[in-house]
Amino acid sequence: MNEEPILDVAHLGHLELLTATPQKSLDFFVNVLGMTESGRKGESVYLRGWDDYQRYCLKLTGAKTSGLGHAGFRARSPQALARRVEALKAAGAGVGWIDGELGHGPAFQFRDPDGHLLELYYETEWYEAPPALRPALKNQAQRFPARGVNVRRIDHFNCLAADIAANREFFQRTLGFRLTEQIVLDNGVEAGMWLTCTNKSYDFAYTREAHGVKGRFHHLTFALDSREDVLRAADIFLENGVFIETGPHKHAVQQTFFLYVYEPGGNRVEVANAGARLVLAPDWKPIVWSEQERKKGQAWGLKTIESFHTHGTPPLPGEPATPKVTGSDA
Amino acid sequence: MNEEPILDVAHLGHLELLTATPQKSLDFFVNVLGMTESGRKGESVYLRGWDDYQRYCLKLTGAKTSGLGHAGFRARSPQALARRVEALKAAGAGVGWIDGELGHGPAFQFRDPDGHLLELYYETEWYEAPPALRPALKNQAQRFPARGVNVRRIDHFNCLAADIAANREFFQRTLGFRLTEQIVLDNGVEAGMWLTCTNKSYDFAYTREAHGVKGRFHHLTFALDSREDVLRAADIFLENGVFIETGPHKHAVQQTFFLYVYEPGGNRVEVANAGARLVLAPDWKPIVWSEQERKKGQAWGLKTIESFHTHGTPPLPGEPATPKVTGSDA
Amino acid sequence: MNEEPILDVAHLGHLELLTATPQKSLDFFVNVLGMTESGRKGESVYLRGWDDYQRYCLKLTGAKTSGLGHAGFRARSPQALARRVEALKAAGAGVGWIDGELGHGPAFQFRDPDGHLLELYYETEWYEAPPALRPALKNQAQRFPARGVNVRRIDHFNCLAADIAANREFFQRTLGFRLTEQIVLDNGVEAGMWLTCTNKSYDFAYTREAHGVKGRFHHLTFALDSREDVLRAADIFLENGVFIETGPHKHAVQQTFFLYVYEPGGNRVEVANAGARLVLAPDWKPIVWSEQERKKGQAWGLKTIESFHTHGTPPLPGEPATPKVTGSDA
Amino acid sequence: MNEEPILDVAHLGHLELLTATPQKSLDFFVNVLGMTESGRKGESVYLRGWDDYQRYCLKLTGAKTSGLGHAGFRARSPQALARRVEALKAAGAGVGWIDGELGHGPAFQFRDPDGHLLELYYETEWYEAPPALRPALKNQAQRFPARGVNVRRIDHFNCLAADIAANREFFQRTLGFRLTEQIVLDNGVEAGMWLTCTNKSYDFAYTREAHGVKGRFHHLTFALDSREDVLRAADIFLENGVFIETGPHKHAVQQTFFLYVYEPGGNRVEVANAGARLVLAPDWKPIVWSEQERKKGQAWGLKTIESFHTHGTPPLPGEPATPKVTGSDA
Repeated sequence: MNEEPILDVAHLGHLELLTATPQKSLDFFVNVLGMTESGRKGESVYLRGWDDYQRYCLKLTGAKTSGLGHAGFRARSPQALARRVEALKAAGAGVGWIDGELGHGPAFQFRDPDGHLLELYYETEWYEAPPALRPALKNQAQRFPARGVNVRRIDHFNCLAADIAANREFFQRTLGFRLTEQIVLDNGVEAGMWLTCTNKSYDFAYTREAHGVKGRFHHLTFALDSREDVLRAADIFLENGVFIETGPHKHAVQQTFFLYVYEPGGNRVEVANAGARLVLAPDWKPIVWSEQERKKGQAWGLKTIESFHTHGTPPLPGEPATPKVTGSDA
Repeated sequence: MNEEPILDVAHLGHLELLTATPQKSLDFFVNVLGMTESGRKGESVYLRGWDDYQRYCLKLTGAKTSGLGHAGFRARSPQALARRVEALKAAGAGVGWIDGELGHGPAFQFRDPDGHLLELYYETEWYEAPPALRPALKNQAQRFPARGVNVRRIDHFNCLAADIAANREFFQRTLGFRLTEQIVLDNGVEAGMWLTCTNKSYDFAYTREAHGVKGRFHHLTFALDSREDVLRAADIFLENGVFIETGPHKHAVQQTFFLYVYEPGGNRVEVANAGARLVLAPDWKPIVWSEQERKKGQAWGLKTIESFHTHGTPPLPGEPATPKVTGSDA
Repeated sequence: MNEEPILDVAHLGHLELLTATPQKSLDFFVNVLGMTESGRKGESVYLRGWDDYQRYCLKLTGAKTSGLGHAGFRARSPQALARRVEALKAAGAGVGWIDGELGHGPAFQFRDPDGHLLELYYETEWYEAPPALRPALKNQAQRFPARGVNVRRIDHFNCLAADIAANREFFQRTLGFRLTEQIVLDNGVEAGMWLTCTNKSYDFAYTREAHGVKGRFHHLTFALDSREDVLRAADIFLENGVFIETGPHKHAVQQTFFLYVYEPGGNRVEVANAGARLVLAPDWKPIVWSEQERKKGQAWGLKTIESFHTHGTPPLPGEPATPKVTGSDA
Repeated sequence: MNEEPILDVAHLGHLELLTATPQKSLDFFVNVLGMTESGRKGESVYLRGWDDYQRYCLKLTGAKTSGLGHAGFRARSPQALARRVEALKAAGAGVGWIDGELGHGPAFQFRDPDGHLLELYYETEWYEAPPALRPALKNQAQRFPARGVNVRRIDHFNCLAADIAANREFFQRTLGFRLTEQIVLDNGVEAGMWLTCTNKSYDFAYTREAHGVKGRFHHLTFALDSREDVLRAADIFLENGVFIETGPHKHAVQQTFFLYVYEPGGNRVEVANAGARLVLAPDWKPIVWSEQERKKGQAWGLKTIESFHTHGTPPLPGEPATPKVTGSDA
């Protein structure tokens, strides 16, 4: 009989994104994506989708450059948090406890093998909408904004890493994430991994860093309710001069309907819809994509765009702080 | 510090539906709903949606009348199965082990306080599509049929019960289901409950039986990928003379976009889409709907249809075996 | 050989709507429906959908009560305008020429047999978007607003009339409108008519006035791009406390996917989508719906709501100026 | 005062497509696109979408190679037909009358300056669905098939031509088609034209032939009801091994949401949705796209695929009869 699965991480809670153009980035998230500001502190503005149950899902922090500040996961219980902290410490990955962050209680910070900063917390502040933002239906966190793209909630994020296998093993062993899909090259090297702790088919993904640097970020994704919402988002990005990198199209891996843009600070942002796809099997057998299969491109034949393999944040040494793209005139 | 949650049930696995018109019911599920036959045994035909990972999600059994045969849940692990069997036995709910069913291993049968037959199993047969039904993308269980309504997978079911509170406590205590929403009347009596063991906002619901009989069934629901798919389903039901009871519309409770029809045997069937709504909070606070709130009807104002409170299967003594409805001519 | 069709009217151009709550009505059209203000004059504000090619499609006029000010059609050419004016004069329907209205040239006003005020004009002002509202694609009239319901363009209107047959003959004979569908009661009395001068299956409809008064208005309709857009509109109306009278659902007549609400002044407003349905046949044979067929309700079985037969604007003597409805609390 | 517009052509009626693999092509149109066979004669099978009002919209003819047999337009009246025949004869474009074709009356055949065979007819056979295909709603031509892509009706076609300006003038002058959009290169040469005789923004398009041959065909397009239907079509094409050339995406020109595939005979077929976009202005000012603007690619940035400029049917001398593509394995 196999060992029982670790079920201690409940879900992705929030992401901190760095930007060297904080005001422009804020305008993008609020007026184009349709997010709501729910706090400010220091150099950071806190933002939320209309159905995130926590106070925020995005901490946008003014900084010298772009990239990931940190990613936070919520533990399933205080006991679960304690168990994972022990495991992280045992793995030598711990950075230490922080306290006093807006919107959640004590968080244990740690680093994955590629050096990205992550944290785990349990106590959280449930969002209470002010009168003007109260929803008509009480089972919804906040009123539907009807502004811009209207992102519903944070869905997942994607980091770059030099050694995918090492990171995969780290997340599986210390935190109990399950691998649902992966890319394995002909030489046996892993080139991408999709991990989940929920019934979503992935809560984050890591893909291979092509430039030998560490700790870079690939993209942050928000969930929309339908593929039609993603198409309308493309119309709205076009109207607002937002650079559309690729999509809308359907990924072969995970079958997500996707659309990738860059926010003004240069970080890649995705809006996506998964249809009714869920991974319900507790013993899901990971799907392995070969080099040959990946060469076919996306589900309906779109070739994977070159910048998808090269653009990450922060930019590489020598690259400009923000990409020189200005929407459809690019 | 609170007790930790029980996470031993992985998901709803399948339903057995009884029908006195087995051939007509089969034609409905295959040609109108777009399901695929994946087995036959005795009086039963086994059916599946195109993305159910197990061999089947519906066992359709010829019988003297309509209603629920049984509902099966899959446990998260062999150990989880053993733990829940102990709890069920301790609660005096156990019926006993069965073995030899098509598509899954030993199952422990039990009855809820209202007398519905349920079962829990772990070992299962993963569906392997024959060549003609192999999907283009390897992360999909079966080829998209492009026939009729094209239901994707089983989503949830709904039973009637005389005592909602007793059933709720049973499922919470012995199996670890979490309550996400409920209806509580002004006199404190519970009139409806929505329970989950996944990140879906419900895996089944129980609503109040108005006629003092036990063990009746309300409906079975299949997931579609979009609200547009539900609308197209309405077009297809109309063309096929299938009786549409109510919808398409949006529930206030759980916000599901719904459409209810009767299959030829008289059982109510729903096709639905939940958008990107998921319950991710491990400590979700149940939403309580009052009598007054329920009187407002569904989300956009549609009044709840009277038959929704009265029609269940099997029919009441004196009612006809199959409802006298013939689609739009009704 | 039959007479050739009259093709002198090009399309519905605009509607003037009266409201006793002009500021609230304006807020509804701008912030909930997502229209753009494109002019003001006297008691009137002029409004447009994002893809109306003319300066406006709606003239919203503060008045003592609600109802239709007038409806304007654009002629196909100056010659076509001259021919129709002759025909209207010959029919004794002429009111006379007006000039100096915002956004279009001289218009010939006339009255239908029920007394509604209508006009025909040819010269018109093409909308030129100010810099902030310029679209990314040059074949679009204005930037997509991404605000509220985002109505695309005016689609059609519906008046009440005591004698449908008389009005039908008037529009067919003097203006060349073609009848595409109609309702004829068992006693031979016409109860509804749908007329077109384009490839849309109707540009306006008249249905029977139940109260023996003349000149009343039923509703104004804006086109949305998809059924999903109509569903999202329902969400937005719900959030904004807008009274939803009926829908979303699909009409049996004309098969339009519909949603009806009341604007704050009490006028009924519809948002709708027709899919790819067009009437292309130049010799389309009118579809005749019988009393029996209409009793089946709408396409998927929704019963036609009683107020749909009784609520018109202005209100009947003794009725309140604005309906006592306040959204989902009604 | 300008001359009045010619309004004698009512709409595109049907297309004859040639195929060297007639059985495979038939299977594609019936089982993948969801069309219905409505006649056979000689080497031809006649096919229809579920809402084409005429007997058929596609004549599929077994031949030695692929390409366009002919395109047929329906005149608005017998008188309109007579007038256009005179104009075609006067222009020296006439080929002559044919009679006895399935489904329509006498047709006058003619050639455009590039040599494509076209015809104009008035008398037509309205489709009468056999009992099994009768729709639930009487304002629909045929029952919704719920099979494959479910194309609704023919929408438009696209030919290649060496001299776009000459063809444009021919269609405008002799037949009264209106130009809605066009591409004009920096050197003043016209590279594409979109013409209409309805309120659809185009009924056909001609784009520049790159190889100096005449009479070639680019694609045939069927209308779907929503963008979501086009996305689902992509899923279905993928499952059926149909080669997807490009899309789904949104054209900058005309803003149509498109998806291009090759049928087994090598002819390009598009499924598309235009949203609620219509050209209602009788004096529409043609949109002119420059070389620079076209280089931006499609609406959301997709680069126009090279084969879109080179692949036409019949194939060029030396090219294979049918393209060597086999869906996602290509």
